[in-house]
Amino acid sequence: MQQYSSVLLEKAVGEFAKLPGIGRKTALRLVLHMLRQPVSEAEAFADAVARLCREVKYCKVCHNISDNDVCEICSQPSRDASTVCVVETVRDVIAVENTSLYRGLYHVLGGVISPMEGIGPSDLHIDSLVERVKRGEVKEVIFALSPTMEGDTTNFYIYRKLDGTDVKMSVLSRGISVGDELEYADEATLGRSLVNRMPFTGRTY
Amino acid sequence: MQQYSSVLLEKAVGEFAKLPGIGRKTALRLVLHMLRQPVSEAEAFADAVARLCREVKYCKVCHNISDNDVCEICSQPSRDASTVCVVETVRDVIAVENTSLYRGLYHVLGGVISPMEGIGPSDLHIDSLVERVKRGEVKEVIFALSPTMEGDTTNFYIYRKLDGTDVKMSVLSRGISVGDELEYADEATLGRSLVNRMPFTGRTY
Repeated sequence: MQQYSSVLLEKAVGEFAKLPGIGRKTALRLVLHMLRQPVSEAEAFADAVARLCREVKYCKVCHNISDNDVCEICSQPSRDASTVCVVETVRDVIAVENTSLYRGLYHVLGGVISPMEGIGPSDLHIDSLVERVKRGEVKEVIFALSPTMEGDTTNFYIYRKLDGTDVKMSVLSRGISVGDELEYADEATLGRSLVNRMPFTGRTY
Repeated sequence: MQQYSSVLLEKAVGEFAKLPGIGRKTALRLVLHMLRQPVSEAEAFADAVARLCREVKYCKVCHNISDNDVCEICSQPSRDASTVCVVETVRDVIAVENTSLYRGLYHVLGGVISPMEGIGPSDLHIDSLVERVKRGEVKEVIFALSPTMEGDTTNFYIYRKLDGTDVKMSVLSRGISVGDELEYADEATLGRSLVNRMPFTGRTY
């Protein structure tokens, strides 16, 4: 453990070093950078972090981070409320939004079922998804979870829960990533993309 | 520019993304990590950063970061006040301290002379170093600046300023890094370490 010449410095570095992927050397670099800025900058930084954590809300409908009770996406009338994309985290909402190809709503589960990490269905926002579907507005549920064992398990669990409703269920297509070299694709992905080959209409997406 | 579902989130991510080496994706990851912690954690983080930047002091003697007017190193009677190690930044003080091989004091210049970046001698704590030496307590000044053109220029500038005093001046030895492969050392380093070869006494450091 390094010892700095100042307790204040020690504390600030310690706080930064708690963040994921940030070690004590990087933490020190960041803190010394802040010290070179005007004090007002540091205060704006501190204030933004504290305010977010104190005042953050989660959308009652989709559990996305929001400034209000219902998030901007759920409250936009221009969006297609009949399609719900099921994602793991807020970051996935942002990733899908960045494609600009989706105009429906979301449902943020808050994770995936993972017995290894002690996360069961009741720890996730699955019940509220089932309720949303049973209320009848939703026509299609798109599963956009990670293509891992946990993601697949969660997909299947929700599939069983929604079985019996007349909602359409779909899952993101899996295959070779756009721009990838075929020779470096793993066998599982290459095999699946062969089995699930798509009709070719002369256009490549 | 990404658009998040919350202005608070947007602001916090924006503040993190101002830090060096942290892009918007990493910033988002850090902010979402903070959101998963108790609010008290985020407040401790924000408080540590704001307090440091508001209350930080610099040692009157050596310009190191300090909680008091004179830093812990300068005020320790067990340290050898007759030797002063001249470094660029606070980080270099920590690096030298971590070797546990130095018991003297420091002098933090705050940078090196760099005409390219508009940093001249008057922007650095050079005058106060010269004063320290002229007060007569200092017997040896060790130059521990980066082995770059700017570092060498600064060394030489201070050398000229101290010329005429009877202080001993030395510079960190330069050569092959411990643990480095000879074949990957650059020519300048390898050449210098050949010219400046040391007597071999049967022990390797």
